[in-house]
Amino acid sequence: MNIKHIFIAFVAAAFCQMAPAQTVVEDFKPSSVNQPGKMFPQVNSEGRVRVSIPAPNAQKVQLDIGGVKYDLKKDDKGVWTGESAPQVEGFHYYQLNVDGASVPDPGSLYFYGASRWGSAIEIPAPDQDFYAQKDVPHGLVSQKMYFSKVTNSWRRCFVYTPAEYDKNPSKRYPVLYLQHGSGEDETGWPTQGKANLILDNLIAAKKAVPMIIVMDNGYATKANASAPSKSAFPFEEVMINEIIPMIDASFRTLSDREHRAMAGLSMGANQTITITMNNLDKFSYIAGFSGTSNYPRTEAIDVEKFMGGKFKDGAALNKQIKLFWLGLGTVEPAPFPGSVKAFRNMLEKQGVKYTYYESQGTAHEWLTWRRDLNQFAALLFK
Amino acid sequence: MNIKHIFIAFVAAAFCQMAPAQTVVEDFKPSSVNQPGKMFPQVNSEGRVRVSIPAPNAQKVQLDIGGVKYDLKKDDKGVWTGESAPQVEGFHYYQLNVDGASVPDPGSLYFYGASRWGSAIEIPAPDQDFYAQKDVPHGLVSQKMYFSKVTNSWRRCFVYTPAEYDKNPSKRYPVLYLQHGSGEDETGWPTQGKANLILDNLIAAKKAVPMIIVMDNGYATKANASAPSKSAFPFEEVMINEIIPMIDASFRTLSDREHRAMAGLSMGANQTITITMNNLDKFSYIAGFSGTSNYPRTEAIDVEKFMGGKFKDGAALNKQIKLFWLGLGTVEPAPFPGSVKAFRNMLEKQGVKYTYYESQGTAHEWLTWRRDLNQFAALLFK
Repeated sequence: MNIKHIFIAFVAAAFCQMAPAQTVVEDFKPSSVNQPGKMFPQVNSEGRVRVSIPAPNAQKVQLDIGGVKYDLKKDDKGVWTGESAPQVEGFHYYQLNVDGASVPDPGSLYFYGASRWGSAIEIPAPDQDFYAQKDVPHGLVSQKMYFSKVTNSWRRCFVYTPAEYDKNPSKRYPVLYLQHGSGEDETGWPTQGKANLILDNLIAAKKAVPMIIVMDNGYATKANASAPSKSAFPFEEVMINEIIPMIDASFRTLSDREHRAMAGLSMGANQTITITMNNLDKFSYIAGFSGTSNYPRTEAIDVEKFMGGKFKDGAALNKQIKLFWLGLGTVEPAPFPGSVKAFRNMLEKQGVKYTYYESQGTAHEWLTWRRDLNQFAALLFK
Repeated sequence: MNIKHIFIAFVAAAFCQMAPAQTVVEDFKPSSVNQPGKMFPQVNSEGRVRVSIPAPNAQKVQLDIGGVKYDLKKDDKGVWTGESAPQVEGFHYYQLNVDGASVPDPGSLYFYGASRWGSAIEIPAPDQDFYAQKDVPHGLVSQKMYFSKVTNSWRRCFVYTPAEYDKNPSKRYPVLYLQHGSGEDETGWPTQGKANLILDNLIAAKKAVPMIIVMDNGYATKANASAPSKSAFPFEEVMINEIIPMIDASFRTLSDREHRAMAGLSMGANQTITITMNNLDKFSYIAGFSGTSNYPRTEAIDVEKFMGGKFKDGAALNKQIKLFWLGLGTVEPAPFPGSVKAFRNMLEKQGVKYTYYESQGTAHEWLTWRRDLNQFAALLFK
């Protein structure tokens, strides 16, 4: 190391020491998804998450969010507090780490995501009004249990019926089947997805027609098989042979293909495109939120081989499919932008009409998918 | 200390060392209310709870259940494991303590009780069949949102409609209003209370008539008031002026007093007796599970003063009330046995007819209340 290098190192070290400490804007408020009466976690106007937990005998406590672990500091009462870097607006799963134990934050409500029930936080979005609980007629979200012979198990779905459903006892309604992503379950859309509130608001504003929404579990394990599958099978068999007939028998549905849609996010998008393209006699509206059936591949799609050549004849598909809809957040990580783009290129090359929506500034998370539903549902059954 | 004392101390120490270690029966199985795929917590045939959590850098990890903290032991991989003394059969809230931090167990599902969302475990009961998910027609559990002017807030209730409800679009049904206890909320009865499964099974066996069950939140805070109240007020105002009219307008109810019941557990029992006795024009069936309106007092009730003298005229009450029902677990702690006994003494002295049920071997927890509902619902609306 010569004199020049030493000088540079000295200046760099001095600069680092002189750099002002990271300024945190002190306008934190309790998260909107806290447990009743809990003051922490909190969020500030920068989107930082501040957590606080008593752990008087711990040596190290961390906030684990967005793939980064942030050290908390202990006060003289044994309470550890600290905050994350600013998070992108939307809904984020997180956890605390107490001396190596990864645990839920006792202050937050719990949600199923990332393959576990655990903590999450809402970073407020400027457009949160479209999924807010407002003074409009509210539909019901009903838990429906049914026995599946395919999986030899009891399964559960949640069914949204619009506010007018019980006031029109002879009217029948179109149905949207709406699926969650990998590591999530049937509670995702009616809870953090806010599907019911989005539809309540759309229907009250006459932007969407009243419809039934069925939110089921995208994991299915064949009886005698060892592990649940992420692929469309055997969920396709459950969907086509069990869920749809059960819903048509239990609710006042319009049961023709013109009045049945399917949409899903991420893994659910992949499943949706596969299941609907295999069953175009049953679906006429198709949507993939942050996902397509070529996932995780980003290379150009060979339309002859892809999904058995189902996208070869664009003109024929355009006659059958009333709406093919794709959505993506602008700050989603790889491989989603690449694989969705490759899928779009294939659609365009084959002349398959589709609608594409970009959620500005959102990641691979529920704010993107709430916006997708808000856009897509407004186009359905018209 | 003389020789004799030293000798005694020596013998005592030797005896302690020689005493066999507490024998734990090694037939542990994952709890029925674990998160998907989680192997811990576990329960054995003695009713011991075994938990296990990785916490490689922790100094002390404990299982906190039934008011006792049990030390766990760390293995060479940093995983802490240990078990409780045998727990009474039924449903118990618990938590873990990691170096002083009280946190939920990442292995369990979470329930609202003890004024927080957190871990719980089910100690299997010999009579669990009556609340099991069986191959019978299942009703819906629907989430209903409504705006309360009394509290100036959105409130939520869960509504059970029997399996036949949607198959008989012109039939109307009697209604049971069913309330949770202190530190719990409207999720208690449809989740750990298993109210829907109990009624599904009773109705399928023709032991109960098909009915609607409304499970609301017993806490209500007057608009402009500071804190929610444990007393019947202002919940009585919400119940009488808002919930009942809202339910009668939203569901196909029979809305006369002969077809309306109210029951509650603990705090909810106290509220039930107060609300129904204040509104005998609206209710004809009344039940208190593990609670009465003289709680926490155990002394003899002065019938002239108690609740404004509402129990003075037993003969008149017997004409108005179709069923007055009380239940209690045989191993409930004070003051419940004493206060319920004082209440029963008062009823007997006044000649008020009532039915009394004891749940054998159960505590102040949900197995007692599941049994209460199973007994009480079978007597309703007949």
